[in-house]
Amino acid sequence: ATTVSGQAKKLTIGLIPADGIGKEVIPGARQVLEALPNIGVDSPSFNFINLDAGFEYFQKNGTALPEKTLEIMKNECDGALFGAVSSPSHKVAGYSSPIVAMRKHLDLYANVRPVVSVASEKDFSQKNVDILIIRENTECLYVKQERQTTDESTGLKVAWAERKISEYASRRCGKMAFEMALGRDKFRQNIPLEKRFWKGKPKVTIVHKSNVLSITDGLWRETVRVVKENDHKYDSVDMEEQLVDSMVYRLFREPHYFDVVVAPNMYGDIISDGAAALVGSLGVVPSANVGDKFVMGEPVHGSAPDIAGQNKANPIAAIRSAGLLLEHMGFHQQALHIYNAVDEVLRRGEYLTPDLGGRATTQQVVDAVIKLVQ
Amino acid sequence: ATTVSGQAKKLTIGLIPADGIGKEVIPGARQVLEALPNIGVDSPSFNFINLDAGFEYFQKNGTALPEKTLEIMKNECDGALFGAVSSPSHKVAGYSSPIVAMRKHLDLYANVRPVVSVASEKDFSQKNVDILIIRENTECLYVKQERQTTDESTGLKVAWAERKISEYASRRCGKMAFEMALGRDKFRQNIPLEKRFWKGKPKVTIVHKSNVLSITDGLWRETVRVVKENDHKYDSVDMEEQLVDSMVYRLFREPHYFDVVVAPNMYGDIISDGAAALVGSLGVVPSANVGDKFVMGEPVHGSAPDIAGQNKANPIAAIRSAGLLLEHMGFHQQALHIYNAVDEVLRRGEYLTPDLGGRATTQQVVDAVIKLVQ
Ligand SMILES: CC(C)[C@H](C(=O)O)[C@@H](O)C(=O)O
Ligand SMILES: CC(C)[C@H](C(=O)O)[C@@H](O)C(=O)O
Repeated sequence: ATTVSGQAKKLTIGLIPADGIGKEVIPGARQVLEALPNIGVDSPSFNFINLDAGFEYFQKNGTALPEKTLEIMKNECDGALFGAVSSPSHKVAGYSSPIVAMRKHLDLYANVRPVVSVASEKDFSQKNVDILIIRENTECLYVKQERQTTDESTGLKVAWAERKISEYASRRCGKMAFEMALGRDKFRQNIPLEKRFWKGKPKVTIVHKSNVLSITDGLWRETVRVVKENDHKYDSVDMEEQLVDSMVYRLFREPHYFDVVVAPNMYGDIISDGAAALVGSLGVVPSANVGDKFVMGEPVHGSAPDIAGQNKANPIAAIRSAGLLLEHMGFHQQALHIYNAVDEVLRRGEYLTPDLGGRATTQQVVDAVIKLVQ
Repeated sequence: ATTVSGQAKKLTIGLIPADGIGKEVIPGARQVLEALPNIGVDSPSFNFINLDAGFEYFQKNGTALPEKTLEIMKNECDGALFGAVSSPSHKVAGYSSPIVAMRKHLDLYANVRPVVSVASEKDFSQKNVDILIIRENTECLYVKQERQTTDESTGLKVAWAERKISEYASRRCGKMAFEMALGRDKFRQNIPLEKRFWKGKPKVTIVHKSNVLSITDGLWRETVRVVKENDHKYDSVDMEEQLVDSMVYRLFREPHYFDVVVAPNMYGDIISDGAAALVGSLGVVPSANVGDKFVMGEPVHGSAPDIAGQNKANPIAAIRSAGLLLEHMGFHQQALHIYNAVDEVLRRGEYLTPDLGGRATTQQVVDAVIKLVQ
C-alpha cells in the first residue's frame, strides 16, 4: 500500500485507540507523526485511518475486533498504532482480547520492547537501564487453548491450558534478538563511549525455565542457542541465559547487566512490566509488534480506566511506539528524531504527567515533543 | 512421630541439604535449632536425620530423589528442612527436580514465603516491605505434563505443556491465604502502631492473568474469591486482585501496597524472587512448603554453585526457614525467638555475608544468631 509520489513515500497508518487512555495517547502520537519535518529524500508523509476494536466496542457491537479492522489493516495499511484495551475482570461470554488476536492474525511474531532510562534533572529514573526485550508474540499460553473438566470423584472443576512452544516461532524470535543486538551495537558506535550505558560486546540473554519445563522451555532455549551457533554473523554477540525467576531478581538488582533479553510470550509480558518499573513509569515504555510484513506500535501500558478522559495520561509510550513503528518500517532517521525529542522533554523535566511526578496534561507533553520535532 | 517425654516434645526433622550451598546453610540452621533454649512447657527438642537428594546425588546414583528419602520423611519425620538443588541447564535424561517431586508426593500444597525488610544501619533493604506470598505448590505448569510433536508440513519440532488449575487446589490455597491474613493481623496487634509496616485492615491480593487465560486463571480467581465470600470469618479481610504483569510492576513501585499475595505456582515463583530483590538479597528470604500433615522449610535461593564450598553463603534464609518450620508445626513462640534473633543480627549489621555487602562467613552469621537465641 506504499505509494511513491516523487521521492516521498505516503504511508497509510491504521489507528486503533481502543479503550480508556488509548483514546488520548494515540491522537497524541498521530500529532507528532504529522509534525515530522522532511528529513532526507525518503521522508514519509502520512495518511491515517481510524479503526475500531476494544472492550467498549465489544459491549456495543458484540465483537472486540471487527473483521473490517483486520481487513483494512491487511489491505490498506503499511503499519498501525494500537492504544490499549480494557480487561473485563469477570469472564464475559464471547469476549476475547483483540490485541492477542491481532498479533496472531497479522503474524506479528516478535514484541520489541526497549526499556531505557533517561538522564534527568528529576529523580524518576532511578537506575541506568538500556534493555531491549524481545517477547515472543504468538504462542506460549497465549494460544488460549483452554478447557474445563470435572473431577469425577469430587465433582470439582479442573481447568487446563495448553502451552505451545515451536521451533519455528522460537527460531525467528531468536533471530530477531541477535539481529537487534547487532543493530544496537552498530548504533552505539556513534555515541561517545562515556555516554553509553552499555559499553561491552552486544549480549543476548535467553530467558526460560527449563529446569522445570525441560521439553517446552528446553526447545525454546536450544532453538535460540542454535540460531547463534549456526551463523558466524553472530560471533560477536555474547549469549547467556537466566531462569525466569532469577531473571526478575537480577533485573532489579543489576539492570545494567542486560542488553537484549529474549523470552517466551508470558515471561516476556511479566519481565517487560517489571523493567518498566525501573525507568520511572509504564507510561514511557513503548513496544512494536513486528512481523515480516507488518508492524504495529503499542504502548506497554494498559487502558488505565482510573485516569481515562482526564487529559493526564502520559503520551510518551505511544509517541515512542510511533517512533518504533517508523524504525521497523525502515525510517531510522525519522524514528531517531522522535526518540531524541522525547528524551529531551524528559531530560528538561518541564512537562511531565503525574505518573512522573509532574502536573502537565497529555496535550502539553505532546506539544512539547512537537516543538522539538518540527 | 512426635514423642511426648514429660512435657517436652521430641521432634524428628529430616535434613536434606542437597546441592551447592545447601550443604552449608542447612547445617547452620540445624545448629540454631539445637541452640534453642527451653521456652515454656511445650519447648521441643530435636532429633535430626540426614537424607539424600539432589543433582549431585543423581549424577552418582541415577536418581535425584531416592525412595528411601520420601519414606523416611513420611514415616519417621515431623518435618523437614531442604537446602537447594542445582539445575542442569541441558536436559539430562532421567533427571527430574526433586523439590518439585517432594512437594507433590508429600502434598505440600502451599509455599509460604514471607518477604520482610529489616530496619538496619546499613543500606541493604531499600524499601519498607512486609509481604507474605502464598504460592500454590502442586499444579500449574509444574504438573510437568509435556510432550513433543513434529509439524508434518515443515518437519520442525513443536512442544506442548499442560497447565492445570483445579478448584480443589485453588480453594485450599486461597483458604491458607485468608487464614494467614487473619493470623498476621492478630500478630500485629502486639506491635505498637508506629512500628508496623502494615497499618490497615488485612488484605489478600489475588494474582492471575484471566484477561488471557479466562478458563484456568478464571477458575483460580473465582475459587479464591468464593473462599472469602462463603465465610463470614473473613469479613474483616480486604480482597483485591492484580494481573500478574501489573503485579510485578506494582511490587517494585509500591511494595507497601501488599499484605498477603496469593498466586498460582509459576507466577508465585517469579513474584517471590522479584520481592526478594526488594529486601537486599535472596539470601534472607525463607519459605515453608506446607501441607495438612507435613511441613518442609526451604530457603528461596538456589544452590549458587559459584560460591559453594567457600563458607560465604548467607545462612539467614535457611535459619528463617527453620523458624517457619516451627511456626507451621505450631511452635509459635520458638519461631518468634528465631526471627527476632535474625532481625537483630541484620539490624546490627556487624555480621553480614557478602551478598549483603559484608565480609562475614556463613559460620560467623550462624554464631551471631546462636548467641542471641540462647
Ligand atoms: C492486554 C494483555 C492481553 C496484553 C498481554 O498480556 O500481552 C498486555 O498486558 C500487553 O503486555 O500488551
Ligand atoms: C528449583 C526450582 C524447581 C524451584 C521452583 O521453581 O519451584 C525454585 O525456583 C523455587 O522457587 O523453589
